[in-house]
Amino acid sequence: MDLGVTEKVKPLIEAVRKLMAEKIVHLSEEYEGEIGNNPQNDRFVLNDRQKEILDELKSEAKKRGLWNFWLTDSEAGYGLTTVEYAYLAEEMGKAPLGAETFNCSAPDTGNMEVLERYGTQAHKDRWLKPLLDGEIRSAYVMTEPGVASSDAVQLSFEAKKDGDEWVLNGEKWWISGAGDPRCQVYIVLAQTDPEAAKHARHTMFVMDADTPGVEILRPMQVFGNDDAPHGHMHMKFTDVRLPADAVILGEGRGFEVAQGRLGPGRIHHCMRAIGQAERALELMCKRGLSREAFGKKIASLGANFDIIANARMEIEMARLLCLKAAYMMDTFGVKEAQPWISQIKVVAPLMATKVVDEAMQMHGGEGISQDQPLARMYTNLRTLRFADGPDAVHRRQVARAELRKYTNEKI
Amino acid sequence: MDLGVTEKVKPLIEAVRKLMAEKIVHLSEEYEGEIGNNPQNDRFVLNDRQKEILDELKSEAKKRGLWNFWLTDSEAGYGLTTVEYAYLAEEMGKAPLGAETFNCSAPDTGNMEVLERYGTQAHKDRWLKPLLDGEIRSAYVMTEPGVASSDAVQLSFEAKKDGDEWVLNGEKWWISGAGDPRCQVYIVLAQTDPEAAKHARHTMFVMDADTPGVEILRPMQVFGNDDAPHGHMHMKFTDVRLPADAVILGEGRGFEVAQGRLGPGRIHHCMRAIGQAERALELMCKRGLSREAFGKKIASLGANFDIIANARMEIEMARLLCLKAAYMMDTFGVKEAQPWISQIKVVAPLMATKVVDEAMQMHGGEGISQDQPLARMYTNLRTLRFADGPDAVHRRQVARAELRKYTNEKI
Amino acid sequence: MDLGVTEKVKPLIEAVRKLMAEKIVHLSEEYEGEIGNNPQNDRFVLNDRQKEILDELKSEAKKRGLWNFWLTDSEAGYGLTTVEYAYLAEEMGKAPLGAETFNCSAPDTGNMEVLERYGTQAHKDRWLKPLLDGEIRSAYVMTEPGVASSDAVQLSFEAKKDGDEWVLNGEKWWISGAGDPRCQVYIVLAQTDPEAAKHARHTMFVMDADTPGVEILRPMQVFGNDDAPHGHMHMKFTDVRLPADAVILGEGRGFEVAQGRLGPGRIHHCMRAIGQAERALELMCKRGLSREAFGKKIASLGANFDIIANARMEIEMARLLCLKAAYMMDTFGVKEAQPWISQIKVVAPLMATKVVDEAMQMHGGEGISQDQPLARMYTNLRTLRFADGPDAVHRRQVARAELRKYTNEKI
Amino acid sequence: MDLGVTEKVKPLIEAVRKLMAEKIVHLSEEYEGEIGNNPQNDRFVLNDRQKEILDELKSEAKKRGLWNFWLTDSEAGYGLTTVEYAYLAEEMGKAPLGAETFNCSAPDTGNMEVLERYGTQAHKDRWLKPLLDGEIRSAYVMTEPGVASSDAVQLSFEAKKDGDEWVLNGEKWWISGAGDPRCQVYIVLAQTDPEAAKHARHTMFVMDADTPGVEILRPMQVFGNDDAPHGHMHMKFTDVRLPADAVILGEGRGFEVAQGRLGPGRIHHCMRAIGQAERALELMCKRGLSREAFGKKIASLGANFDIIANARMEIEMARLLCLKAAYMMDTFGVKEAQPWISQIKVVAPLMATKVVDEAMQMHGGEGISQDQPLARMYTNLRTLRFADGPDAVHRRQVARAELRKYTNEKI
Repeated sequence: MDLGVTEKVKPLIEAVRKLMAEKIVHLSEEYEGEIGNNPQNDRFVLNDRQKEILDELKSEAKKRGLWNFWLTDSEAGYGLTTVEYAYLAEEMGKAPLGAETFNCSAPDTGNMEVLERYGTQAHKDRWLKPLLDGEIRSAYVMTEPGVASSDAVQLSFEAKKDGDEWVLNGEKWWISGAGDPRCQVYIVLAQTDPEAAKHARHTMFVMDADTPGVEILRPMQVFGNDDAPHGHMHMKFTDVRLPADAVILGEGRGFEVAQGRLGPGRIHHCMRAIGQAERALELMCKRGLSREAFGKKIASLGANFDIIANARMEIEMARLLCLKAAYMMDTFGVKEAQPWISQIKVVAPLMATKVVDEAMQMHGGEGISQDQPLARMYTNLRTLRFADGPDAVHRRQVARAELRKYTNEKI
Repeated sequence: MDLGVTEKVKPLIEAVRKLMAEKIVHLSEEYEGEIGNNPQNDRFVLNDRQKEILDELKSEAKKRGLWNFWLTDSEAGYGLTTVEYAYLAEEMGKAPLGAETFNCSAPDTGNMEVLERYGTQAHKDRWLKPLLDGEIRSAYVMTEPGVASSDAVQLSFEAKKDGDEWVLNGEKWWISGAGDPRCQVYIVLAQTDPEAAKHARHTMFVMDADTPGVEILRPMQVFGNDDAPHGHMHMKFTDVRLPADAVILGEGRGFEVAQGRLGPGRIHHCMRAIGQAERALELMCKRGLSREAFGKKIASLGANFDIIANARMEIEMARLLCLKAAYMMDTFGVKEAQPWISQIKVVAPLMATKVVDEAMQMHGGEGISQDQPLARMYTNLRTLRFADGPDAVHRRQVARAELRKYTNEKI
Repeated sequence: MDLGVTEKVKPLIEAVRKLMAEKIVHLSEEYEGEIGNNPQNDRFVLNDRQKEILDELKSEAKKRGLWNFWLTDSEAGYGLTTVEYAYLAEEMGKAPLGAETFNCSAPDTGNMEVLERYGTQAHKDRWLKPLLDGEIRSAYVMTEPGVASSDAVQLSFEAKKDGDEWVLNGEKWWISGAGDPRCQVYIVLAQTDPEAAKHARHTMFVMDADTPGVEILRPMQVFGNDDAPHGHMHMKFTDVRLPADAVILGEGRGFEVAQGRLGPGRIHHCMRAIGQAERALELMCKRGLSREAFGKKIASLGANFDIIANARMEIEMARLLCLKAAYMMDTFGVKEAQPWISQIKVVAPLMATKVVDEAMQMHGGEGISQDQPLARMYTNLRTLRFADGPDAVHRRQVARAELRKYTNEKI
Repeated sequence: MDLGVTEKVKPLIEAVRKLMAEKIVHLSEEYEGEIGNNPQNDRFVLNDRQKEILDELKSEAKKRGLWNFWLTDSEAGYGLTTVEYAYLAEEMGKAPLGAETFNCSAPDTGNMEVLERYGTQAHKDRWLKPLLDGEIRSAYVMTEPGVASSDAVQLSFEAKKDGDEWVLNGEKWWISGAGDPRCQVYIVLAQTDPEAAKHARHTMFVMDADTPGVEILRPMQVFGNDDAPHGHMHMKFTDVRLPADAVILGEGRGFEVAQGRLGPGRIHHCMRAIGQAERALELMCKRGLSREAFGKKIASLGANFDIIANARMEIEMARLLCLKAAYMMDTFGVKEAQPWISQIKVVAPLMATKVVDEAMQMHGGEGISQDQPLARMYTNLRTLRFADGPDAVHRRQVARAELRKYTNEKI
């Protein structure tokens, strides 16, 4: 169970760190400053400078051969293991544009995986290629308002057959990335047969974002932030018509596609969260050493030694658990790795929000302000405790896996 | 030690609840929707509808005789004790405009207290009267960038004598309420003698917000929110000239004024925090009963019974501790009550952020969105863990008070 | 809601403290040293010195008029309220023989309450009188091995009618106090009609401890301690015959008796727990001031300020919550007070174990040894998290009471 | 960084598990039942049956070639890495006699390491050989009463030169294993030059346990348990005379010896703690599935799913952290590995006490009684939070290592 940095990934980590330090961190900041800076004051429009920044970052990454690392266990990319990729994801998590620069950002990686694994050749030609090239972006359209989406059988956004076509109606929300003007393709889960067996009621579709009948109602806000231009959009579909070949994998097999999609994505999120926790701990230490109160460095006041030590220990443990989940996935596949994926899905966002919260506290009021990246990190990380299943659902999975060791009865 | 609802305050609580339910809660929401809705798109400008709403609420409160409750132990108001007032503050905390409607909002109450207790007759005529009437608002200008403001001797914003006048120079930040166009008076702490004994270096001033040389640099953001139109402003003073009678209480007595100011204000903040925790628990319960997953009400899934029970227990305890701190202040004065004030200052915001966080989690993604008041409550409450001294400073006070029971040595 | 020390109880608190300091604390220690010091090496036998100590303490308490405080709201005793009694219980909790000295110890107070409230005149003459005089002791025989006793319908120890007599068979365990040779009376819950409605299946009996057929199998150990001579005994009843008038209140009314019994007892336990937490905090502070490491007093090392402050805050809050539960019981009766009793039943033992645990840690290895009272306090307090219902059951009660505010459906 | 079970250690793990299941678990129980069962009722005397059990277990282990695994990185043993050994230690932790059966128990392994690394040939012949053969046992005599032993410069037990001999005087306590009649050799730290530089004041000695002048005052109790016959003894040395060659490594080099000794031992303790946590989780799950309350299996009541899931996650993380610390030690040596050793020293005992505490709670009163192994596990694990340095000292080390990344100043 090698959880370490391999010889293969070592130079990639260095190269990623280098580009982060040289360009990504400060261009991320500039990019954020440009949001909404356009004639319409529309935060979901990209101005020329924003486009330039994205181009510069991506073309530089491509030029340096740092691209599509996430294609683990594949001939198309570097053939990295998930463990190896995890170390890269951690680095990329340290700046807002980190993952996108290397074409490794959510939800695109998950969507590309779906298209590569389950898509037809036509799907691949039309959507996968430009996604792999970083020319367009995508959204995963699953969650619905008014229901507990983690209990997926409650999802009732409908797709009805009408001759050769499918007609989609209903609302979806928290559709991350759908705010970006470059988002051109949606992967959509819809209920196609409410009378079928529980896990055969839904079908996955792929579609052009510009299909008539699609309406973006509003951005959902996260602690008051719209996360523009990416956005987490509330959408409405009215008689949206899709051709028969928009179906992925097959009618009634939507959950199958969804299941396969979620494993790696969760691990990527977690590793990026750990990267953010590392960054927060660094900020905490530097603050503790540079600011004084009552005649002492803040670091040596009160419980701060303990706070720093606890942060270090919790980061170490979460990273190791994440690496083990990655290892399990590499070795036994997503299904077998499920309990470990659930474990890290609970642990990493909780740990990272806690470390960031302590870092904010160590910074005083400045810590929650725009002068530090911490509050933004906090709100992003807090969102992860809902995304891809709330903590409670994952704890339930872990507990049931544990109890099944000792019983054959249904738990 | 009567910590209960007295006969005297009982009808006031009912009256406050009634106005909250009839007008304040929904007008608060409308008011928030209007923020920035003006030709300049300036969130720190009030439009006509905002002014109307404020007028309607305040005049209704006045008409019903519900005004200036905070004037505890005073002939001017109701002569409520701090314990009695605490119950009212809890109710007012449940909606954003709650406290302002009854002219009981921070930082005005603290500032009025300063003016009443330490101000000259001229100060009172010019500033206290319109504040008591709710016609203008005020700001307390103390915290400075770049230093640990809780170690108040580090504050170096300077006021220098120039003949009969004082000349103020420097920056201040996190000046709450200074964004509001109705804010017309500042209470300002400045260093007047850096060579004096530690606690005699600073002086408190009162001044017109429109004095030349005052510049508002920007609003500080709290988790990305500007809290407009109230705002927490970053300000710069350049050669701001004040007359000799702008001094409050006396040169070098700034800390004395500051100390007296903070006791009641902290308790008010805490009681409003407890009100918000109560509201969050109510939302949590209602959500738990109305939403289902996996065939059960959410309330009876997972650890939710425990989460609800813990929230109830922690709210009860924090409320009792706050009431005891209020009682101590009523009975023995601010100074004697200090350890209890520090205790509740640590406990209430921590407890309330925790309860709100659990309530958000129980709501799924909706919980952190604009569709629920929880995220806004969270960011406000999180701020309280810095305001008026960070947790660590108050814990230190509590520990030292405890240890001094057993030693005469300096701790 | 007066939660303070009344004029009435103030001198009693002083008198209790005085006797604690003068005699109880050090005689408690001597008493413990004598346990098992008899020819049989039997820890459940009292030697002459033990008897002398008990006599001396009790007769001194009686002489000073400090006796049976627990008889709240009664003409027989002082007529204290539960709130007033709580302050005394806190003091008595600070030494092992504290409560017994004043004839206020569990399970006697609960048993006396049962006899006073529900017993016949014959029961009172025979058992209540010597109990009130502190001449004998008693046990409450309810919990059974092999079942979750908190789900009381599972209790299956049986009593069958045989003519005019009842015949009892079965096992009971964790029967506290049954190890003491002075324990002469049992209050026993037995199932008399397994076919009856859920809460009418059981009946409460009173009986002589020497009745033939009663066998003490062994002491249950608490973290390896037998808590001799009090003991928590595992017992077996074989054809134990009781007369018809051994029934308390009436056949099938066992739960009714049990319910009434538990309210006050839980509050007494909690207040004594708070007394122990206070004692632990005092020891923690004194240790922190007297021991040095790395050139500093331990109190000012690491997180110790925070640990001390948190202990103080948590004790304050638990005490206030306990006093409020007592107030609710005084004002509205046991049934209405139930959610508050459940709250403090969860809070106080958890808080006190935590404070004692921190105190042990501050003492280094000595803290868990026989040289400090902390480990003994810890194991006693830890037991309270099971006694009279485990935490989970009480949290469930609190949550259901909360949710019932918003629904009429069964929760 | 291979943290997994290697092909080499896999069959050893199986063999250890097999012997645990076949003999060690139930003979451990029988052994414990025999403690004190001798004419003198002396718990620190071994009766014939105890000796038989020890012989049977050890000779069986030897026969199966399962012996002295702890000799990592050595030609004498299996040449296991610390990572490999960790997996074995985890298994051995699951029963009281687990480690001793395989001659892998504390404090012997640490003492053997000292003798092997720093001992003279004479030391090795006389003490190391019988220790390696499991014929005698040993004690490490370091901790002293009345001082904070973690601040080792405070240790003042003295050794004075008298001609060619050393004369030792003073008290030591918490000397684990010194109660066992088979304990025949002590490794003793004594202050030999109070005027020397801080870390050159002490010297390490090796000596026969039967040397005149050594007196065992009493066993220290852990939560009331004497941990007989092993014991944690309070000892007094009066004019104990040792020859010059009793010195290990050299005069004034005591701390050097002590430092080298502690790294591996801490990791062994931690892995055994993790083994106990695993056993507690297993007991928790089985209880949750076998006991019912309120019509449901306990496992699915209240927060129990979350409790089980949290236990699983925390065990996983602690195990991985421990393995990483072992890996660091294998790869970079004790000194470089120090921060990781400190991390796991804090994490493992805290985690394991928490899991065991939850397991006790899930078992009701039975959980803390002699009918379950949990209370015994708890008290042993709780002791680890002091042994080899309290949590606070290790957190301090971790924090300082972290801060030193960003400063060259003394922290």
